Amino acid sequence: MKNFDFHNPTRLVFGKDTIKDMGAYIKSYGDKKVLLLYGKGSIFKNGVYDTVVNSLKENNIEYVEMSGVKPNPVLSKVKETVEFMKKEKVDAILAVGGGSVLDTAKISAASYYYDGNPWDFYEGKVKPEKALPIYGVLTISATGSEMNSGGVITNEEEKKKWGWGSKYTYPRLSIVDPSVQKSLPLNQTVNGAVDTLSHVFEAYFGGTKNTLMQDEFSEGIIRTVIDSARILVKDAADYDARAELAWAATLALNGLNGLGRDGDWASHGIEHSISAYYDIAHGEGLSIVFPAWMTYVHNEDVDKFARMGEKVFNVEGATQEEKALNAIKALKDFLSEIGAPVSLREMNIGDEKLRVMAKNSMLRGPLGSLKKLHEDDVYEILKLAL
Amino acid sequence: MKNFDFHNPTRLVFGKDTIKDMGAYIKSYGDKKVLLLYGKGSIFKNGVYDTVVNSLKENNIEYVEMSGVKPNPVLSKVKETVEFMKKEKVDAILAVGGGSVLDTAKISAASYYYDGNPWDFYEGKVKPEKALPIYGVLTISATGSEMNSGGVITNEEEKKKWGWGSKYTYPRLSIVDPSVQKSLPLNQTVNGAVDTLSHVFEAYFGGTKNTLMQDEFSEGIIRTVIDSARILVKDAADYDARAELAWAATLALNGLNGLGRDGDWASHGIEHSISAYYDIAHGEGLSIVFPAWMTYVHNEDVDKFARMGEKVFNVEGATQEEKALNAIKALKDFLSEIGAPVSLREMNIGDEKLRVMAKNSMLRGPLGSLKKLHEDDVYEILKLAL
Repeated sequence: MKNFDFHNPTRLVFGKDTIKDMGAYIKSYGDKKVLLLYGKGSIFKNGVYDTVVNSLKENNIEYVEMSGVKPNPVLSKVKETVEFMKKEKVDAILAVGGGSVLDTAKISAASYYYDGNPWDFYEGKVKPEKALPIYGVLTISATGSEMNSGGVITNEEEKKKWGWGSKYTYPRLSIVDPSVQKSLPLNQTVNGAVDTLSHVFEAYFGGTKNTLMQDEFSEGIIRTVIDSARILVKDAADYDARAELAWAATLALNGLNGLGRDGDWASHGIEHSISAYYDIAHGEGLSIVFPAWMTYVHNEDVDKFARMGEKVFNVEGATQEEKALNAIKALKDFLSEIGAPVSLREMNIGDEKLRVMAKNSMLRGPLGSLKKLHEDDVYEILKLAL
Repeated sequence: MKNFDFHNPTRLVFGKDTIKDMGAYIKSYGDKKVLLLYGKGSIFKNGVYDTVVNSLKENNIEYVEMSGVKPNPVLSKVKETVEFMKKEKVDAILAVGGGSVLDTAKISAASYYYDGNPWDFYEGKVKPEKALPIYGVLTISATGSEMNSGGVITNEEEKKKWGWGSKYTYPRLSIVDPSVQKSLPLNQTVNGAVDTLSHVFEAYFGGTKNTLMQDEFSEGIIRTVIDSARILVKDAADYDARAELAWAATLALNGLNGLGRDGDWASHGIEHSISAYYDIAHGEGLSIVFPAWMTYVHNEDVDKFARMGEKVFNVEGATQEEKALNAIKALKDFLSEIGAPVSLREMNIGDEKLRVMAKNSMLRGPLGSLKKLHEDDVYEILKLAL
């Protein structure tokens, strides 16, 4: 195990009928006026908007609204949000939605105290010294953003989809009520499950040796995601499975799973380059990239891929190599079983832009820790993903 | 899964050669004078005292010392510590040692702002509104006290060994360097492993249904403890096994393992009554009580005991009942294998005080959630433990 320094100050309130208390929580922390930030309207359909607004009113929390945050959230929306908040002089942001809304809230909360371009944080030109407090109400479990400090934003003009975070951008308090997720379209539930698995994989396959407790933790999350996803594709309203998937998603990226191990994160880098060029959900991209990446790099740590096969998929094989390949096949079979794509062609993406995407993925330097990937490596992985 | 509200603000610094940075951490938080609290001198043998004191001096942190905290820490020492701190006007407590030192620090930190008897907190007569900041340097992994808010103190006069905690008594920052634990006597390593298992069991067997992610997490901790304890009884200096056991011990009681499930805690209550009358280590008492408790209550949730058997010990059996009993036997065999006692007689305790201990265990009311235990139940369990 490697040394680590862990500090996650987010308070997480989890379970049925918990959203109605958000106004009281905000009041207890002394905030009086919030920006209510959300997406494109799903929170009207599932009733979350009404629950939140009533809770704010009952607790005399003043609020102003900003809607229209898109999946794969964009820099222009961040700028619009920051400008609006500065005019309105809010005490905090209340982000209601999925990872895209929380991610937008984080960079906006830091940019509230900065007069330059919010993208400067992503480029490392400036570091925050404070940020507005963030409250979260999660409506789709996937990114773990409800209990971590990071956020991914797309700079549309420069075709950069990058991640950033700081110790000031942990949500102060997030509420996760799995029951509101029963109305999600099936593909969004599936994408959330894949995103969760991908976060576990990035740490699990990062290449660090002697990490038993962390491997056990990762494998527990993977098995839980597989079990609950299989139930939810048949019965979207199963509360227990919703709760297991939601909690697994938070645990997969609240920092714990990554402790003591290198994170690889090459597959996320590759996916970000795909979705910088194609309108594809993050979970779809990851479902396509991961098996291809695993196939390309599995010889760097064949025992770990074999271990996943044995611990998660009960695969057999005469050699470690055979078990590893069977593990990757079992993962692909599972992804297909729940309706996730495992090839670019399934998303109607051909080979036209493989080279430009491979080049784009290098903008912040080579990718990966298990195997350092350069442009040609990514190109080969994208070919495997076709 | 049950609803939960999780907030653990402790920062945990984990790994080799991390203790030397404690002075810099304290300085970074702005504290200038600390009480250096420790036990009976093991920190002189393993070098931790020198490392800590040098680190304080290098960072110009003033310190005063209080030593002599005993295993099964006592109220009289808390009173002495609080009086000394009030006279010295410290900014924070730096607790260096195991759970007993950290537990003493917590109640002392709260009592610093209270003029009455510290035991009033334990009796629920008063609640803290603040506490001194606590910094921890852990020298034995067992109680999880380095990353939770709770502490167990023995009121010697009233023969009460009780737990208490508040949101103000989480350590601000704890350092866990597993390498300093290589010099521990074997029985202390074993007791730490048993204590860790016991914390997992209390939540795992609390009786709540449909808790897959949490069960996976628990089983991962149990398997890690078993694996690393088996290595350490043969090679006390194995760093990787030390690190796995240390991290498992923190995870077992930093709040995560308990989420979404009822905690039983009857076995802890019974053990506390045993060690109120006999000079027995907490881990030894738990090792004796748990198999007896399991035998007495297993029919309340036979599937869960059978599940532990399958997931942890690979037991077989024609029925769930048979698997459950085989699981309890496998646990006892493991405990014996690493040198932990599984009967009162092994500790030279006879049947003289079973009734008085059973009565003592009821001072705060009936015990347990899987099965509510009254005095006669505890008496039967103690008989099984003979």
